[in-house]
Amino acid sequence: MRILGIDPGLATLGYGVIDTERGISTVVDYGVIETPKTESVPVRLHMIYDGLNDLFDQYKPDSVAIEELFFTKNITTGINVAQARGVALLVCCDKCGAMFEYTPMQIKQAMTGYGKADKKQIQFMVTRLLRLKSIPKPDDAADALAVALTHAQTARLGGLFSI
Amino acid sequence: MRILGIDPGLATLGYGVIDTERGISTVVDYGVIETPKTESVPVRLHMIYDGLNDLFDQYKPDSVAIEELFFTKNITTGINVAQARGVALLVCCDKCGAMFEYTPMQIKQAMTGYGKADKKQIQFMVTRLLRLKSIPKPDDAADALAVALTHAQTARLGGLFSI
Repeated sequence: MRILGIDPGLATLGYGVIDTERGISTVVDYGVIETPKTESVPVRLHMIYDGLNDLFDQYKPDSVAIEELFFTKNITTGINVAQARGVALLVCCDKCGAMFEYTPMQIKQAMTGYGKADKKQIQFMVTRLLRLKSIPKPDDAADALAVALTHAQTARLGGLFSI
Repeated sequence: MRILGIDPGLATLGYGVIDTERGISTVVDYGVIETPKTESVPVRLHMIYDGLNDLFDQYKPDSVAIEELFFTKNITTGINVAQARGVALLVCCDKCGAMFEYTPMQIKQAMTGYGKADKKQIQFMVTRLLRLKSIPKPDDAADALAVALTHAQTARLGGLFSI
């Protein structure tokens, strides 16, 4: 099963593609779609739209896992992230029938067994689970791999329980 | 000049189309794109995407005016509105080069001369400026006509000042 993980954002949208078979996940690709602050928000949303469409066409994921939003601090940044996430959900709806959402706490829980784990612990586990030589960079790409791995684990457990 | 006004929302997105010549605005159409709560958010975003594309194809506006977001109360509703607004901005970017954003206060100011006017005052002025026999319904459609009229007035004043 091929999973595309997405960490939504307007300035930087992280993505991570993994293949999962029998509980073993392997990295296929990861990175970020970046949009320049010199462009207008609509143009930047269009860059995300085009970039995600290209990723779907290139990697043809069986399912998509995307992080849910929590706004606690900067509401203006939050609005832009939500607008970008809306565009991401639109592309996912177009290109892939199987989409799953995970809260930051669910991702932390799945990666480390602790819902309040810090970023370094998550990155350590992403690196370990994917047998990488170093922590994936930038952070948004590592976050996207974490949500993909969360779905790999959740889907597998769901499969085991359904037997 | 033909203007499409948009009042963004996920459950109900209001739209209003007006033609403006020499300070006189005439209504062309107004209404709402509604999405059922029984559908998933991505599917509902896709309905908005398709509905707005149809509106652009049908009315071919010269410019688009869209309301800016303010989140003060329900943050979950706010996230969904922002996600829908992201999709709306994407379509606007695709279909129309001239897009303008107005805050609720700018709209109130333009419609009534008072930045804290209530909804009824706005609706009264929309009805009057467009020489309608009754208040446009539902409320989201009236709001969309208000943002279109705000742009008509702002663009005209901008034109006068630039002489």
